[in-house]
Amino acid sequence: MSQTAALRLTRFCVRRLSPSCWTRAVSTPSTPPLTIREQEDGIRRIVLNNPKKRNALSLAMLSSLREDILTDIDDKDLRVIIISARGSVFSSGHDLKELTSAHGRDYHASVFQACSEVMTLIQDAPVPVIAMVKGIATAAGCQLVASCDIAVASERSTFATPGVNVGLFCSTPGVAIGRAVPRKVAMEMLFTGRPITAQEALLHGLVSKVVSEEHLEEETMSIARRVCESSRPVVALGKAAFQRQMAQGRDAAYATATAVMVDNLALRDGQEGIRAFIEKRRPVWTNSNEKAHE
Amino acid sequence: MSQTAALRLTRFCVRRLSPSCWTRAVSTPSTPPLTIREQEDGIRRIVLNNPKKRNALSLAMLSSLREDILTDIDDKDLRVIIISARGSVFSSGHDLKELTSAHGRDYHASVFQACSEVMTLIQDAPVPVIAMVKGIATAAGCQLVASCDIAVASERSTFATPGVNVGLFCSTPGVAIGRAVPRKVAMEMLFTGRPITAQEALLHGLVSKVVSEEHLEEETMSIARRVCESSRPVVALGKAAFQRQMAQGRDAAYATATAVMVDNLALRDGQEGIRAFIEKRRPVWTNSNEKAHE
Amino acid sequence: MSQTAALRLTRFCVRRLSPSCWTRAVSTPSTPPLTIREQEDGIRRIVLNNPKKRNALSLAMLSSLREDILTDIDDKDLRVIIISARGSVFSSGHDLKELTSAHGRDYHASVFQACSEVMTLIQDAPVPVIAMVKGIATAAGCQLVASCDIAVASERSTFATPGVNVGLFCSTPGVAIGRAVPRKVAMEMLFTGRPITAQEALLHGLVSKVVSEEHLEEETMSIARRVCESSRPVVALGKAAFQRQMAQGRDAAYATATAVMVDNLALRDGQEGIRAFIEKRRPVWTNSNEKAHE
Repeated sequence: MSQTAALRLTRFCVRRLSPSCWTRAVSTPSTPPLTIREQEDGIRRIVLNNPKKRNALSLAMLSSLREDILTDIDDKDLRVIIISARGSVFSSGHDLKELTSAHGRDYHASVFQACSEVMTLIQDAPVPVIAMVKGIATAAGCQLVASCDIAVASERSTFATPGVNVGLFCSTPGVAIGRAVPRKVAMEMLFTGRPITAQEALLHGLVSKVVSEEHLEEETMSIARRVCESSRPVVALGKAAFQRQMAQGRDAAYATATAVMVDNLALRDGQEGIRAFIEKRRPVWTNSNEKAHE
Repeated sequence: MSQTAALRLTRFCVRRLSPSCWTRAVSTPSTPPLTIREQEDGIRRIVLNNPKKRNALSLAMLSSLREDILTDIDDKDLRVIIISARGSVFSSGHDLKELTSAHGRDYHASVFQACSEVMTLIQDAPVPVIAMVKGIATAAGCQLVASCDIAVASERSTFATPGVNVGLFCSTPGVAIGRAVPRKVAMEMLFTGRPITAQEALLHGLVSKVVSEEHLEEETMSIARRVCESSRPVVALGKAAFQRQMAQGRDAAYATATAVMVDNLALRDGQEGIRAFIEKRRPVWTNSNEKAHE
Repeated sequence: MSQTAALRLTRFCVRRLSPSCWTRAVSTPSTPPLTIREQEDGIRRIVLNNPKKRNALSLAMLSSLREDILTDIDDKDLRVIIISARGSVFSSGHDLKELTSAHGRDYHASVFQACSEVMTLIQDAPVPVIAMVKGIATAAGCQLVASCDIAVASERSTFATPGVNVGLFCSTPGVAIGRAVPRKVAMEMLFTGRPITAQEALLHGLVSKVVSEEHLEEETMSIARRVCESSRPVVALGKAAFQRQMAQGRDAAYATATAVMVDNLALRDGQEGIRAFIEKRRPVWTNSNEKAHE
């Protein structure tokens, strides 16, 4: 059989890589790392680690975040990513010092391109990415929350797009936020810069779940562990199919999804899951792209 | 005047009919019918009638459901369809026994195509289709709820897309659910398989109304009777226009809807409604596609 | 440097002007004006002023509203528009007397075109447009609320699309409402004609905020004044970018928004805002399209 959509979809490739915009982002050995990456039992944790700068998404921070996401992303031991932050601010968005006229038009363009690339990288990654939000998420920081697949927020976290107040309308955050919440909610946020509460964010779909700060870790890990219980290629296939079909008209979307369902069933893990269900036992996943031998 | 958009829109045709996938679905005379169809006062009720199999959407069930929808669908006595189910499970989705490797790739494809066809048939039908949901609706069963125009749910009903747990990601249900609820809600359902409550389903737009189980029938019938009070071709025109314009950009959508409004006014029932309103009397509908004589 | 996207986006032009449909709308000097327009401190207030006719959106009313929006719309002293209404009905939608067969097909078409033009004019205007809603908003009146960028409603206001009851399905209102609220909410409103409460409208994104009637004015003015604190060209750029990118696929949307961010930074007000933030002082806006000299 020729290469199927299943294989095509799960072979993740970063097509938008534009090396020129990333070369500037070099951290010196003496400073603490901008992000911290750990991985255990399939769960990769990425922590934004620049609380003094309110975890600003500087080019260096974006570069670090990007590397943390991309490293061994196709490794079958990686099953889910959690992005969180140290300190009382999840992220305040771009570093405005990088956006003065001193840096020039091309530099500005590279900052926004780097940011958009990280945001779409999260959505196109073959594993689910969960934002665990404590504190304030503003501008590109709010965009980061909107771009994750799932977002768990503490009840005292807040969300805003205040760029308009400093003369820089949050147009790129508007891409992610406008696709997450109703239009009127997005527009009021963008035009007034006013923050919304975690409860409002939940009501409107910007976050998936709101819990007390003391349960934030527990709830996030519970969702992450749940993801780890399923088969990696099945999740990868499903995530890619969801993103793709949502950009299509209904009939084309059904054609896409139907083909993916058939490919999913052709996976060894697809058949194992169904057999296990019928035989009333727990499935044993290969977590690989292996096909079922028919 | 040449044939207008009104006529084109209200003459319902099932263009996606692919007879090959339906021929397998023959129920034997000895077994109880998979669905029950009744019609009275313009209201057709279709009841999923296989509670022992959790009203699984087997090919046979899909075939039966499809026939129940299509029969005399252009008859002006039919004004609204209600889909409900016997037993404590509204529908558990596909019959996994039809999806083992024993059946092969082509058979799998025919199952998903049949399912997509029924779902789009509901959205393209010239009368509103209401889901009346009691109990659990999962996977393609949840997709069925999402595909109906209106859904009334009992307060103890729940909704889930747990395919990922059995190695078969709910990609086709994601087409309907992703277009009904915010993206983050859809993705958490799809990635974790966790059920959401009726209240959450209401909050996020998956269902239109939640009532206690004892009021479920009454509330659903009240909506159905309300639909019966309006003119059939006016509703048919409006439903088709809504589906069509929602798939277009704003300006094209306004062009579509403007043309439909003009055609609506050219219907005999369109003019009758306006005259009755001005004359402060109840309108008397023809419920036919007749044009007003000018 | 050649003309940038910033300039292109902020030079507002009304491309859909179709003079023929507007010439009929002439108010006689003896009757009170259909709308009242006032402007102070950057805030333009437009009041629908025909409470006896439930502020019906007759061709004359639409013409008056359109003129009130368009007058000096590119003047840098105009920063935000508030649309409200006198009386207990915000607006009841089209004047059905204009839609009888006596007026003929072409006239009907001109009514709907005029209405769609005003609705898209609001969305394409270079300043935010806020609906301040007290009382009932139905059919095209509900569409008007859905078309504004922000809507503040009193807690006793209600919203409905009851056209189906008078034989004229609310297909054009469905364009704006279907893009504001979840599909199932829109469809139930359209098929049953039943009103939803202000709280339901808030829950589903049709309005941005609900307050008690006595706080309606205060809350609306607070949002309007907040808009006036930001730079006009920054807001204009941002509003146009939001509308444009929301009609695109994700990757094209990011390309659009990235270009707009760069143009925004090239504005004098863009650089002033960032400098003021870094220098911890209030920004002083030019409110003009001037570029920053580099």
